[in-house]
Order: sequence, then C-alpha cells, then structure tokens
Amino acid sequence: MKVVSENRAFGGRQLVVGHPSAACACEMTFGLYLPPGEGPFPVLWYLSGLTCTHENAMVKAGAQSWAAREGIALVFPDTSPRGEGVADDAAYDLGQGAGFYVDATQAPWASHFKMWTYVTEELPAVLAAFPLDMDRQAITGHSMGGHGALTIAATFPERFRSVSAFAPICNPTGSDWGRKQFAAYLGEGADWAAHDASLLLAKGGFSLPLLVDQGMSDKFLDLLKTDALQDVLAETATQGTIRRQEGYDHSYFFVSTFMEDHVVFHARALKA
Amino acid sequence: MKVVSENRAFGGRQLVVGHPSAACACEMTFGLYLPPGEGPFPVLWYLSGLTCTHENAMVKAGAQSWAAREGIALVFPDTSPRGEGVADDAAYDLGQGAGFYVDATQAPWASHFKMWTYVTEELPAVLAAFPLDMDRQAITGHSMGGHGALTIAATFPERFRSVSAFAPICNPTGSDWGRKQFAAYLGEGADWAAHDASLLLAKGGFSLPLLVDQGMSDKFLDLLKTDALQDVLAETATQGTIRRQEGYDHSYFFVSTFMEDHVVFHARALKA
Repeated sequence: MKVVSENRAFGGRQLVVGHPSAACACEMTFGLYLPPGEGPFPVLWYLSGLTCTHENAMVKAGAQSWAAREGIALVFPDTSPRGEGVADDAAYDLGQGAGFYVDATQAPWASHFKMWTYVTEELPAVLAAFPLDMDRQAITGHSMGGHGALTIAATFPERFRSVSAFAPICNPTGSDWGRKQFAAYLGEGADWAAHDASLLLAKGGFSLPLLVDQGMSDKFLDLLKTDALQDVLAETATQGTIRRQEGYDHSYFFVSTFMEDHVVFHARALKA
Repeated sequence: MKVVSENRAFGGRQLVVGHPSAACACEMTFGLYLPPGEGPFPVLWYLSGLTCTHENAMVKAGAQSWAAREGIALVFPDTSPRGEGVADDAAYDLGQGAGFYVDATQAPWASHFKMWTYVTEELPAVLAAFPLDMDRQAITGHSMGGHGALTIAATFPERFRSVSAFAPICNPTGSDWGRKQFAAYLGEGADWAAHDASLLLAKGGFSLPLLVDQGMSDKFLDLLKTDALQDVLAETATQGTIRRQEGYDHSYFFVSTFMEDHVVFHARALKA
C-alpha cells in the first residue's frame, strides 16, 4: 500500500492510496478523506458512477467541506479494475469504469471484475491501516454508485447505520443500465435479483434510514427507474425519503447541491 | 453568443457561454453562475491559473454553494485565447492556458493574446446580456489568476468593491512566473510594472478591501513572492490581510477550503 498523494483540505487530509488488490488482480486506487482530529472517525462510503475513477467525486462533489464539519471520513473507491491486462469494452457502460459493483463470473470479465468483493471485503480490510471506526459506517453513491450503495446496504444492513443515493439506478434488471451488464458479467440465468435494489427491498424489507435525491431534468430518468424503488417502499411500508428535485440533471452540479443534506443525514445516524 | 450548457446548481443556474471575441480574434468561452432569484446580482470575478480553462474552478472550487447563499453571481473567464489558429508553446506556462492577463504586443502572440482587454473591456460588455449589477463588482483569482485579480483591481479601483486572491503571483517582474511571459508577450523594455501587483501597490497605494490566502506547503512559494506583497502593504501602510495557511498546497483542495471565507468577504463589500 502506498500513499500516492496527500493534500490538506478543510483542516483534514485528502489522501489517494494505491494498493495491490487480490480480488481484482490488479493495482487499485482509492481516495480517503480524513477530517481534522485524531480519530477514529466514522466512515461514509461514496460509490461513483459510470466512467468515474476514484477522483471525480473527490474533486467535484464538495463533500469534504461537510465531512470536516461533521468529523466524518470519506472513502472514494474506483469503479472497476484498471490496467492494460484488464478486459475492456468500447462502450462507456461496460468494462473499465463500469464495474457495476458485482463479481463477474463470465469471460472475459471474471479474472478481474470483482468489485462486490473488493468494496465489501477487501477494501474494508485495507482501511484498517487508517484511524477509522468501522463500527460506524454509512454508504452513499451516484447513479451506478447509487445502485451499489443500495444493494450493498440491503445485503449488509448490520454493517451500515444509514444509506443514501444521488440519482441511483434503482431497478437494473428492468433497465438497459443493468440487463446489459448483468448479462455480460453474471450471465443469463444468474441471480440478478441479488443486485437489484428494488427487488432486494421487495424481498427483505429494509430498516436503515434511507435518503434518495433524484433530479427531474435528469436525461437518464428512464434508465434509473426511481418509480420502481418508490413503489417498493410503499408496498413494503418501508421508511425512506425519495426527493424529486425540479430542474436538476445527472451532473455533479446536482450531486454537490445536495451533498450537505446527505452528509448531515449520515452524520445524524453515525453519531446517534 | 450562445449558451453551450446550463445546469441547475444550488437553486441557481450554472451557464457556459461561447461568443466570438474581437479582442482575442477567436471564439471564447466563459462560465457564469447565476444564484437563485431574479437579479440583478452583484458579480464576483474568478480568474483562473496556469493550464486552466473556464471550467476548472467552475467544477472544483465549490464557490457556487456560497455564492447561492449570498446572492452573488460568479464569472469564470478562460485564461487565454484558444484554437488551431492561435499560437501556442510546448511549455505549460506560455501560450494557450497561460495568457497572464496582459495584451501581447510581440509576435507570435500579439494577434490573439489580448486577455487584459478581454477581461477588462470585452467580457464586461458581453455580460450586459445577463441580470448582473455591474455597479457592484468584486474580483478574485488563483495563482496566475490572483496576479490578474490584483493587477486589474489596482488599475480599476473604482470598478471593484473588494479584491482577494488564492496563492497569487505577487511580484511577477521578480519571478520566473512573470519575466518569461512578459518578455514573450510584452517584450523587453515594455512597462512590465503595470502588470506587477507589488509594484502597482508600491506606486499607487490601494484602498480596496484586500484578502490573500497563501498555503505554506505550496511548492511554488518561491515563484509567488508573497513576501514582496506583504512588504509593500507594510511600506505603504495599506490595509489588507495576508493569511499564511500551514500545510496547504497550491491545489483546488486549498482553494475550496478557503472559498467560503472569500465569498463572504466579497459579499460584505458588495452588499454594504
């Protein structure tokens, strides 16, 4: 493990860390923001969307300002394995930058694309080297990363105090942002429902505090399937807030606008 | 003039605007953030540093959050003329992305590199199309853009209510960030002092509220010459605050950390 860069930010430290990943069989990179103080700090995961690396949210979402104020650490994983030996696709929504937070079982993806194991097992172990309180974790994400945050929180409800998402892919088995990737990574006939937030919630309910923001001028609304998640919350009498934000699109201008609300939402749960 | 993009952000509108520039003899692009409401809004200019376009600060500095709260518009000009027909240099600190906010008189730069006229005359006229109160302007910038902000404010003190800078080049005639570019753009023997903030202040004093932040782990400290500006403030008994921020570097993590302070500083002057 090596610290690739360190920048002082809002009284704390913004680190970029590289490490060999056994799960992904390549070098992986993540961002870690440590707020002012000694720690151990509660942790908010931020999973990024299609085409992003560890860096996009780290430099564009403005989360450090609020995390510093609340005394929360931020983890920014990459969205896929990387490197010359790693399979890729010409499309922006498959291959590198588009891991979809699943463990691929199909060629040519299976040898590296193990983002589920990476984010839920390997990276938490790597984080033990830092002053983090892993008994207090929360998770959020944007778009494909919102899908990751919701599915991971639904699978490990005991691990997280709260979950939120910005414009998440809510029902990937019913969307071209999902079917294409699950067919490629998992294969037809695999348990796709285990990676569909709406289906997971329909099956298992959900006891975590939940906040979702969705811009109503988002050009990907048809792919995100916010209504599916909304319907499941109603059907299962699950508590959760889905806010529809008029005029907002899918960009980091949208994410940064509502980031303060999300950090404050998680801070309440993490510090309760 | 055409609106290249528009994103809702913090209740207002983040525009990117393209227009033909007579001063620079090319198409120019700038960012304009309009806060919530009808306007006319007071205006804070943000001049960017070496290698930047109009976009860097617009997506990384986090200024819109505070500008929305204070009801202030933000203007993000580009840092040079652009395009295939525009002269350039292999170095990052000369040519495109490095206009230094001067009007070039020397070949091959003179035909396009008129950033002084562009920022002080042409772009203010273009902005008349938007709901801005040009009787209430303030100016800030980063690095080369801090140099631009200080020299423009010193030259047009009646136009601005306040000036600030993040890690500005304070004394370019005494620095390799200045001498090289002035020699290329203005030529030996030209009036370089007219574009040196420390020399301008030494000659003319300065009545505007002034705030400068400088990171003390900035690897460019030797080129920025903060001490020269500090000395001139003392010698001329000029009011002004230069804050030395321990541990901060030259990055946008530094800029974004102190952006709230700068926006609040300007808001006080603009709304006084």
